[in-house]
Amino acid sequence: MNMIHTDSTIQFDENGKLRHFLTINGLPRKTLENILDTANSFITFGERKIKKIPLLRGKTMVNLFFEPSTRTRTTFEIAGKRLSADVINMNAARMSTSKGESILDTVRTLEAMHTDLFVVRDSASGAAHLIATHLPDHVKVINAGDGRHAHPTQAMLDMFTIRQAKDDFSKLRVAIVGDILHSRVARSQIHALNVLGAKEVRVIGPRTLIPTEIESLGVTNTSNMEQGLEDIDVIMMLRIQRERMNGQLIPSEQEYFNRYGLTQAKLALARPDAIVMHPGPINRGLEISSRVADGNQSVILDQVTNGIAVRMSIMATLMGGQEERP
Amino acid sequence: MNMIHTDSTIQFDENGKLRHFLTINGLPRKTLENILDTANSFITFGERKIKKIPLLRGKTMVNLFFEPSTRTRTTFEIAGKRLSADVINMNAARMSTSKGESILDTVRTLEAMHTDLFVVRDSASGAAHLIATHLPDHVKVINAGDGRHAHPTQAMLDMFTIRQAKDDFSKLRVAIVGDILHSRVARSQIHALNVLGAKEVRVIGPRTLIPTEIESLGVTNTSNMEQGLEDIDVIMMLRIQRERMNGQLIPSEQEYFNRYGLTQAKLALARPDAIVMHPGPINRGLEISSRVADGNQSVILDQVTNGIAVRMSIMATLMGGQEERP
Amino acid sequence: MNMIHTDSTIQFDENGKLRHFLTINGLPRKTLENILDTANSFITFGERKIKKIPLLRGKTMVNLFFEPSTRTRTTFEIAGKRLSADVINMNAARMSTSKGESILDTVRTLEAMHTDLFVVRDSASGAAHLIATHLPDHVKVINAGDGRHAHPTQAMLDMFTIRQAKDDFSKLRVAIVGDILHSRVARSQIHALNVLGAKEVRVIGPRTLIPTEIESLGVTNTSNMEQGLEDIDVIMMLRIQRERMNGQLIPSEQEYFNRYGLTQAKLALARPDAIVMHPGPINRGLEISSRVADGNQSVILDQVTNGIAVRMSIMATLMGGQEERP
Repeated sequence: MNMIHTDSTIQFDENGKLRHFLTINGLPRKTLENILDTANSFITFGERKIKKIPLLRGKTMVNLFFEPSTRTRTTFEIAGKRLSADVINMNAARMSTSKGESILDTVRTLEAMHTDLFVVRDSASGAAHLIATHLPDHVKVINAGDGRHAHPTQAMLDMFTIRQAKDDFSKLRVAIVGDILHSRVARSQIHALNVLGAKEVRVIGPRTLIPTEIESLGVTNTSNMEQGLEDIDVIMMLRIQRERMNGQLIPSEQEYFNRYGLTQAKLALARPDAIVMHPGPINRGLEISSRVADGNQSVILDQVTNGIAVRMSIMATLMGGQEERP
Repeated sequence: MNMIHTDSTIQFDENGKLRHFLTINGLPRKTLENILDTANSFITFGERKIKKIPLLRGKTMVNLFFEPSTRTRTTFEIAGKRLSADVINMNAARMSTSKGESILDTVRTLEAMHTDLFVVRDSASGAAHLIATHLPDHVKVINAGDGRHAHPTQAMLDMFTIRQAKDDFSKLRVAIVGDILHSRVARSQIHALNVLGAKEVRVIGPRTLIPTEIESLGVTNTSNMEQGLEDIDVIMMLRIQRERMNGQLIPSEQEYFNRYGLTQAKLALARPDAIVMHPGPINRGLEISSRVADGNQSVILDQVTNGIAVRMSIMATLMGGQEERP
Repeated sequence: MNMIHTDSTIQFDENGKLRHFLTINGLPRKTLENILDTANSFITFGERKIKKIPLLRGKTMVNLFFEPSTRTRTTFEIAGKRLSADVINMNAARMSTSKGESILDTVRTLEAMHTDLFVVRDSASGAAHLIATHLPDHVKVINAGDGRHAHPTQAMLDMFTIRQAKDDFSKLRVAIVGDILHSRVARSQIHALNVLGAKEVRVIGPRTLIPTEIESLGVTNTSNMEQGLEDIDVIMMLRIQRERMNGQLIPSEQEYFNRYGLTQAKLALARPDAIVMHPGPINRGLEISSRVADGNQSVILDQVTNGIAVRMSIMATLMGGQEERP
């Protein structure tokens, strides 16, 4: 497992208030629970006639995506606009590559324009953390996915979705299934489940895709999907990058689906009230069958809905601190 | 003519209220007239100092363009922003292609984010209709062009422009000139002119570009431009796709212009007060001469102006229904 | 020097009010000073909690970039949104190229949509001027860079930054260093410095990159960097386009840096309180060393901050006139 030493203390200001959201690792349980509680108030908000509150009015938020992701960018754009922020989308890859500017020069330049919040996606682990360390206190950073390191807002919306369906983490056995090795989502999920006190976190996947040092994170693991699903309350499927398919790590799409694809038959091996999750976009017939994805144990679309509320909650939590500026 | 059976009843809810705008085919005259009347109120709006009303405030509108069209996308973006909607632009082609997600998964995902209105452009006929059938009642769809099937908002702005100049459809002979075979614009125009009771709709173009079953739509046709323009009150030019030029269907740009390009000489064959229309962007010297395009019988720029008002009208009509949600 | 005869009178309406901002050349000193004074009020604005005023509410502003520039586009987008305008970003290159539409047809079409302000970037000198001559009086144009001709908003933010640090232009010796030949920034800076009455403007660069007729603009010039920096109060570095490096004009990056790159040693040759400027993005180690760029004589990030205020000032100045429309 690629260890990025992002010191979690940078996420707090001198008064112990959360100022960046970079990684779940090192955050206290109370912080996660506050975010989930605040997200609750934004859930009903999404069903209102007028989905707009002036919480971030007059603030400038930049979607700084050095790696393209229309879907994640859109969730942050919607969340920001509903909070009344001015949202600037930047395909930053183009900016920095075509003109040879460094990522830090890009960020310092944007900060000089009095931007208030950066939502950062990058293919390099540690990018959001690097940016956060080079900004003044009143500018906030949210990590929207950095390399294989972390995708903490995804993990928080997952936790929200689990709590919505199950409420008590201490009784839950959770399976994370797929390409653990390359997954920033899995890393953040494991940290969040640990912090919130899940009874067991079990990772399931091909041997080649489970990092050797995984047990140091306090999780169990198996390469046998059928055994792995036993007694499981929550199944968190990971997305398979098709580009890894032709390599040595995964033999073929068909074989992968046979062994690890979540079908109705495999789902029956978990607890009868188990819920099925997936960060999306799903590859139907690769990591999950359509019947399961669209079935009544699936909470995949709930995750999407919750994603907006949880991101609004995180933005509001970070930016709320700005009100206290002198 | 490529017949897509989009059941027009899907466009109405159980109370007979318009909820989607997918095709003109099957819409009653009263519906079209209401849209045109409502558009009237948005015409003066465009000339106000403050072009902003809160009709769609707190609503999320997604420009879901699976086929690129900067121009059409811009008209909807401007219309949506003037109605105070939160407008999200998605180059969806990139999203679905690069990650292999299906169009329906994309749409269901966006719907889960509590979006209210989809403006859909796709290269496949029936795409907007397909999407509309898979969304809950309170989410609206506007077809911004699907394959060769329909481009109903374009046809409505054309009707508005005709009514502005001519007012009584029952006295009008209208010519549609160009590549009828591949034109979604022509299909929607024909339906709209029929519903509004035009005296005659005449299509003019090379034999190879007129669908054989065209007469079933109640239009006359000819491949002789000079004869075709006789007695005509409204000339609707179509855009020629240059990529068809080198095929078998059209011999050369020069020959096409000679036979079907609208010049001052050909225009003189129509009624002296005939108006000239074009959906844009125009190919000067291919389907129309600059002198005609910029001449005083041209209403091409009026069409653009009216396009904003008509799209605001359609959005307001569809979204007005949402106010009645419990 | 490529002379574009953009008649500066087009920048004023019949009442002598500024209506476009295309070039500094020909603008009276009072006009520049008014813009700088107005920008002052927007400087503190950037530090407010709510960076939003309704000055351009209900106005439609189009960022019409025929040449890509994420950075400049972003500054205008931020400035426009803080003034509450509806901002439409158009990658116009794609529009006009892929569909063969002319730049004037594109602009006339957008104008027909009741847009109020165009911010134009183009690779052709004179593009913004061309557009301005084809629009009705109440539509405004800001030149965001046209070919080698002008980049007047950049020059104005530079003047603002100089005035912030130095206040009296008549005592200042200013050096502009680098590729003068290809630089629209240099042209606009020279005009602005002349209008504001700088004591001396000195251009420094390789002989091959200094236009022969440069002296007609009232500037001195030298190809010797060390001599050129003597007595200088303000050093304005230009950006080097790396693509020129392999041509005949510049021998190599290393040699260029040795001769013209601004290092701490070279900086010591100027006046001790000299300030260092750069339009960005900077090429560290090519035209400037990191130590100088990040040093305490550098005002490079101040330029960025001032860029927002100055652009807001120019927009407010131009659009203020619109209030007087009947």
